Parts: sequence; structure tokens; C-alpha cells
Amino acid sequence: MIVMGIDPGLERVGYGVIDAQKGNRFTLLDYGIVKTPAHTPTVERLAMIETGITQLIEKYHPQEVALEELFFTKNITTGIVVAEARGVIMLTAHKLCGNLFEYTPNQIKQAITGWGGAEKPQIQQMVKFYLKMKDIPKPDDAADALAVAITHAQTGVFGGMFGIR
Amino acid sequence: MIVMGIDPGLERVGYGVIDAQKGNRFTLLDYGIVKTPAHTPTVERLAMIETGITQLIEKYHPQEVALEELFFTKNITTGIVVAEARGVIMLTAHKLCGNLFEYTPNQIKQAITGWGGAEKPQIQQMVKFYLKMKDIPKPDDAADALAVAITHAQTGVFGGMFGIR
Repeated sequence: MIVMGIDPGLERVGYGVIDAQKGNRFTLLDYGIVKTPAHTPTVERLAMIETGITQLIEKYHPQEVALEELFFTKNITTGIVVAEARGVIMLTAHKLCGNLFEYTPNQIKQAITGWGGAEKPQIQQMVKFYLKMKDIPKPDDAADALAVAITHAQTGVFGGMFGIR
Repeated sequence: MIVMGIDPGLERVGYGVIDAQKGNRFTLLDYGIVKTPAHTPTVERLAMIETGITQLIEKYHPQEVALEELFFTKNITTGIVVAEARGVIMLTAHKLCGNLFEYTPNQIKQAITGWGGAEKPQIQQMVKFYLKMKDIPKPDDAADALAVAITHAQTGVFGGMFGIR
């Protein structure tokens, strides 16, 4: 089963595509970011994100798409535009794929490392391990997207489903 | 010139459509809300909002669409889903109309009442006055949408343009 993980953002949308087989065996297919230029009207950046996500879904035909849930802890203003981008990403994935799942940061940490309080480097090491990569995936947004894809493959596809809203 | 004002939300998206002529003469064409049911997955509600806004733009063919900018002061969690809906509304209006403008609550208060600290009842009274309505428009979301449409007609179309991002 092809799973696409997405880490929402306005400047950088991380994506990671894996083929998940039973027994937590994963094949890495692709990862990277959809980047939008600064000093560009927000709505044009939203259009670029829609185009980028559409192209990725049409290329890999994921059966399921998993997104990281958004929490605002630091910067409210940044949070608003990230949520605007997230709405566009959700709707695009829903229209093209139909199977959309969401996971909180804690659910992702728990699924990847077995501990909800894990730090980013531990998660990235585990992503590298699960996907048999030579190096830690870069940038962080792409690593986060792979982490949510693995989370969904572990907990949603072959285990109990949760995280949808 | 046909101007559509939109007050973003997830449960209720307010809209107001006016025909604006020079000299602050306005004809009311339509107002109301796009409503989405509670206890429905967010992404399905986003799809309903996209459909509703699309139908309204295809019906009235506004030359310009004006949105209220979002500020989070009360409930962050509600703010996230409102911003997600707002992203969908922005992109839909951009794709179908192309001319999208945004105004802060203070800009709207200033434009409608001449005072940035005005309260909601004062704004609603002025909306009723400008549009020669018998009663104050209901619900509040629709009144807010008409207010942003009038704001754009006063400040954007015939005056200096501001508010785009």
C-alpha cells in the first residue's frame, strides 16, 4: 500500500512517499518539499501548494494520505498561514485520494520511537532506520512527512485506525 | 462593479454581494451563509465550503472578492479550523475571480463607521443604512460579510487599494 505523509506549511510543505507492507516493512519511494517563494501573495502560494500536492498524488497514486495535526504553541501569526495552507492541502488530498488521516505530534513520536516525549533527532534516526536510508532525510519538513507516513502505516493501515477527524 | 464580501468560518461562512457604483451608492444583491453540519469530518466541511463559494461566484460573477483577515484572540483550536477554511475560501475565490482583497477588523470598522473602535451593533446599523435595508441583516456572519464588501467598495475600488497580501 502506498502511503503519502505530509508535513503542512506555507513556505515548505514536506512530503514522503512509502510503500508499506505487512510486518512494518517499508520501501522508500520519494521525499522532499514543495517550496513557495517569500514575498509572494499568500493566495498565490496556496495555489502553488495545491499544484505541487496534486502533481505528487497524480505521480504516486497513494491509497492513503496522512497529515500531521497542527498545534499553535509559538507564533500565532505564522500559525494562521500554516493553517490556511493546511486547509488547502487537506482538501486537495481529499479530492484526489479520499483517504485522509491525521496524527498529533505525540502520536507520531509514540509510533516511531515508542515514547511520546521523543526529540526530533531520535525520530529522524528511526525514520532512517525504518527506511534503510544511508543518511538522515533532509530537510526536517521531509523527515517529518516520512515520520507521519510511517506512523500511519504502523497504526492506521495494519493496526487500529485513529486520527481521522 | 459587483463585490462579494466573505466572513470566513468553518460552521458558517458569511457572504454578501453588492453592486457598487461611484459616490458610495450600493445595491444589495444577496447575502446569507454557507453552513456546514457539525459532527462531520473537517475535510468534508471544507469540500462543502468550496462548493458553496464556487456556486455563489458562478452565480454573481463578482469582479472582486473581499475577505476579513483573521485574528486569534479567544480560542486557538477554533482558530485553526477557521484558518483552514479560510485557506480554502481564499484559493477558491482566487481561482474563480482572481481579484482578492483582505481587510482587518479595524480597517472595516474605520471604513464603515469612521471609527476603528466601533462595536458590532454600530457596524450593523451602518450596513443597514448603506444598503437601504428595512432590518439589520442576519445572521451576524452575513452582516460581517456585507461590511467587508462595503469596506472594499469604499476603500479599494474607488479609493486607494490596500489590504492585499
